[in-house]
Amino acid sequence: MRILGIDPGTARMGYGIVEDAGSGRERAVAYGCLETPPDMLPERRLQSLYRGIVDLLLEYKPDCVAVEELFFGRNVTTAIHVGQARGIVLLAAADNGVPVREFTPMQVKMAVAGYGRADKAQVQRMVRALLALPEIPKPDDVADALAVAIAALHAASLTSRLGGLS
Amino acid sequence: MRILGIDPGTARMGYGIVEDAGSGRERAVAYGCLETPPDMLPERRLQSLYRGIVDLLLEYKPDCVAVEELFFGRNVTTAIHVGQARGIVLLAAADNGVPVREFTPMQVKMAVAGYGRADKAQVQRMVRALLALPEIPKPDDVADALAVAIAALHAASLTSRLGGLS
Repeated sequence: MRILGIDPGTARMGYGIVEDAGSGRERAVAYGCLETPPDMLPERRLQSLYRGIVDLLLEYKPDCVAVEELFFGRNVTTAIHVGQARGIVLLAAADNGVPVREFTPMQVKMAVAGYGRADKAQVQRMVRALLALPEIPKPDDVADALAVAIAALHAASLTSRLGGLS
Repeated sequence: MRILGIDPGTARMGYGIVEDAGSGRERAVAYGCLETPPDMLPERRLQSLYRGIVDLLLEYKPDCVAVEELFFGRNVTTAIHVGQARGIVLLAAADNGVPVREFTPMQVKMAVAGYGRADKAQVQRMVRALLALPEIPKPDDVADALAVAIAALHAASLTSRLGGLS
């Protein structure tokens, strides 16, 4: 099971590919940021992000794409721009036949830090620890993308174990 | 000069194609709504909207796509969903080499009703009057899409007249 987690944004789109490493452990396959320059036309930035996501799908062949479902505490203008980038991610996944899973911020925090109200720093430390990374991935968008990928991997693992019991 | 105006939304995406009819008048070529059912997966809805927009671009060959720039008085969750649909519109335009023009709600109201604080009903009546339509187009998304198309047509006409003077 391999997951592509995405933290959508137009200037910077964090991504993290995480896979099942056996024995209930997970491994980071790749992570980073797709970036677009502010002086590029908005529609060209989205086009560039679409191509970047498709490249990741083709290169890493994830079983699913995971994104956060809800966005709290941001203003409406930010939400529009996050939404535009998020729409591009969903479209790229659909166009490539890769299912999308959505997780609330609380589900992500529960999965990564074991606590639904964990703060950003705790989540980042847990991402580093769970994936045995040399340091906390930067910028935050990358750590957030890895966190949602870990949440999706845990959810998939739980579903398959429950399926095995029934 | 022919404009495709869009009022982005996931459940309902209003569109209106307006062209220059000579003598400073404008004509509606086509208008309506792209709709997606609520029980469809979000990514499939976006995929369906992308195809719908591309179909409009291929059928009507507009010189530009016009959308509203800012979204006031809506909550963040709505903004995310409008943003997703809006991102799809921008991508479809870019993928088909059609330029995008963005207008603030105030610019649209100024262009259509001659008054930047005109209310929704005034704008709708003016859309009907300017395009000599038998009645106000429904739902509101269609009238809004025609309004932004009219704003884009006026802006293009002004630019070309100013260009002619210089």
